[in-house]
Amino acid sequence: SRTYKLAVLPGDGIGPEVMAEALKVLDAVAARSGLSFEYNHQLVGGAAIDAVGKALPAETVAACEASDAILFGSVGGPKWEKLPPNEQPERGALLPLRKHFGLFANLRPGICYPALTSSSPIRPDLVEGGFDVLCVRELTGGMYFGQPKSRTTLPDGDIEVIDTMVYKKSEIVRIAHVAFKAAQLRRKHVTSVDKANVLTNSVLWRETMVEVAKEYPDVTLAHLYVDNAAMQLIKAPRSFDVLVTENLFGDILSDEMAMIAGSLGMLASASLGKPKGDGLYFGLFEPSGGTAPDIAGMGIANPIAQILSVALLLRFSLGLEKEAASIESAVKKVIDDGLRTGDIFSGAPGTKKVNTKEIGEAVIAAL
Amino acid sequence: SRTYKLAVLPGDGIGPEVMAEALKVLDAVAARSGLSFEYNHQLVGGAAIDAVGKALPAETVAACEASDAILFGSVGGPKWEKLPPNEQPERGALLPLRKHFGLFANLRPGICYPALTSSSPIRPDLVEGGFDVLCVRELTGGMYFGQPKSRTTLPDGDIEVIDTMVYKKSEIVRIAHVAFKAAQLRRKHVTSVDKANVLTNSVLWRETMVEVAKEYPDVTLAHLYVDNAAMQLIKAPRSFDVLVTENLFGDILSDEMAMIAGSLGMLASASLGKPKGDGLYFGLFEPSGGTAPDIAGMGIANPIAQILSVALLLRFSLGLEKEAASIESAVKKVIDDGLRTGDIFSGAPGTKKVNTKEIGEAVIAAL
Ligand SMILES: CC(C)[C@H](C(=O)O)[C@@H](O)C(=O)O
Ligand SMILES: CC(C)[C@H](C(=O)O)[C@@H](O)C(=O)O
Repeated sequence: SRTYKLAVLPGDGIGPEVMAEALKVLDAVAARSGLSFEYNHQLVGGAAIDAVGKALPAETVAACEASDAILFGSVGGPKWEKLPPNEQPERGALLPLRKHFGLFANLRPGICYPALTSSSPIRPDLVEGGFDVLCVRELTGGMYFGQPKSRTTLPDGDIEVIDTMVYKKSEIVRIAHVAFKAAQLRRKHVTSVDKANVLTNSVLWRETMVEVAKEYPDVTLAHLYVDNAAMQLIKAPRSFDVLVTENLFGDILSDEMAMIAGSLGMLASASLGKPKGDGLYFGLFEPSGGTAPDIAGMGIANPIAQILSVALLLRFSLGLEKEAASIESAVKKVIDDGLRTGDIFSGAPGTKKVNTKEIGEAVIAAL
Repeated sequence: SRTYKLAVLPGDGIGPEVMAEALKVLDAVAARSGLSFEYNHQLVGGAAIDAVGKALPAETVAACEASDAILFGSVGGPKWEKLPPNEQPERGALLPLRKHFGLFANLRPGICYPALTSSSPIRPDLVEGGFDVLCVRELTGGMYFGQPKSRTTLPDGDIEVIDTMVYKKSEIVRIAHVAFKAAQLRRKHVTSVDKANVLTNSVLWRETMVEVAKEYPDVTLAHLYVDNAAMQLIKAPRSFDVLVTENLFGDILSDEMAMIAGSLGMLASASLGKPKGDGLYFGLFEPSGGTAPDIAGMGIANPIAQILSVALLLRFSLGLEKEAASIESAVKKVIDDGLRTGDIFSGAPGTKKVNTKEIGEAVIAAL
């Protein structure tokens, strides 16, 4: 059987320490299943800036190209905040990676585990029983890369700035299919978010969602304006199944949803490129949270988001559904057993505060 | 003493019934203070579509032009949802009014009254004691009116849509002054929200905020990316004082904030045009909530947002601070006395469920 090649980009802050646990979990899965993985460790983000002067070295890109998927940690931190935005770790590494590999579909599960509803900032009666929303964000279109982007000094001395929101119908069609296919494997409901009462982009977005929906008669489709969606996510997170939206709205709403779920340290994400034809995608897999510079190096960060990123990688890029599900069940068991890193520890009876390594070991034991 | 002229546009749904209470309150204020008001009632929104075929008749605009300020109810409803977006009540009335009168500054107080924290969907410990955030949204720039907006069929049959986000520095400067001046009268902290790691617009926005801040040494300035702001509003609403942001981000965040505050029926808003020179502004004043078609005509809607819109009108367009404050205190007293319309009634001891008229009468009695 073949050896799967993974580009491993731990990055900054807590990235390296949570990545270490995620790889140990993957090693354990490999040992149990007889699968073989090869890790190609590469620099990215602030660590790459410090070592070789740029956030995304050519060598890192080449290693990703030679791999089956990218396992990403997180990038950024106060040390690099004074660089020009283009050169900073987040923008300088993430946006070029998305563009280079055509990672158009960002899947962010917003899961609030039944045992962790007390970590949610939402009133207990609104999140009782937990929830599981999948946010599907278009990741390579809209205002992120749209041209022209310009800054001009006008004759009267005023300055004018322009950004452009552009979508092609074909880009909307392909993300719609990702959302509807995902919904078919879940509770069969898609909520499309737009601002069709103001944006020409959104009018085409809405039309296209309606059109693609016809190919999925088993899935229901609802539309929300983005301002209303920002409200409904708070009031009724349990009413959502799959939420699909364009790049910038997705940036805002998926973070809002993560906050509502209550623990960024638990949430993984997948950024998928063109389908490979066999139902699999080249992709980049990363935690939804940041580098948490305040606790970096202390060994107390929550590694679960990084561990669940491995599960998403196995599922979407390698088609190893059984192994992916085994990691997800193991994580669930660890939570049900009451183990908590500081970010989700509330002192509730039956729970115990543990560190990064202890979670990693517990997940392996629960596999 | 002069007679103040107000254009009164009740609109659709609960608009007329809450407007009736707001005008009774204003009449009571007038009687007590010896001031004189003249109301020019005009059609707007769905009511105008039904009567004369368009959401914003020329006669309505003319009446607004001849007035000192506009008191607006709310527009929209299921009846008109199948019209093209441009002709619908919200878009067809609100956007042209904003543009025509240059209403560039939208002020939306997001107040969670200490007695009403249980109406907030946020966990009690995070909103204990209530909060008072002022959202300052730029209202005539950005993607709402930016050109080009286009839809093109490409040679290969694909469709491309474009919206344009444009700001001039002078537009950012004037909204910055509104935010800093407001902060000087409050807790002296401004949070500017942008996406400076991605948008050229936001880089200029951030630079300009920093520049204008120098004229307000007593006010502190912080910056948040919009995705992070969507999270912090939920986790720490009490940490905000004045939040200032561009049009579309403001659309999303001010609605999110209203939901966090817990009762849309309590929140008023002011949309201000060019300063008149004496510290006053021509403006449009309206509730933040919608037309609530489900309860329209039943006499049970919460009229407080409309009543507080009158207070904002008195303050910003007429300079009648004492009268504005008297309405706000009366509303506070009514809430402290335990009177609640259905939207904020939780059955807590010491509270009583009342209807629209009873709130209006109680506010008048408390003046
Ligand atoms: C760092 C930034 C450019 C990025 C984005 O806006 O996409 C981040 O917020 C994210 O969501 O991955
Ligand atoms: C109706 C719509 C065009 C409007 C907007 O987006 O500005 C509304 O959402 C608002 O916030 O007043």
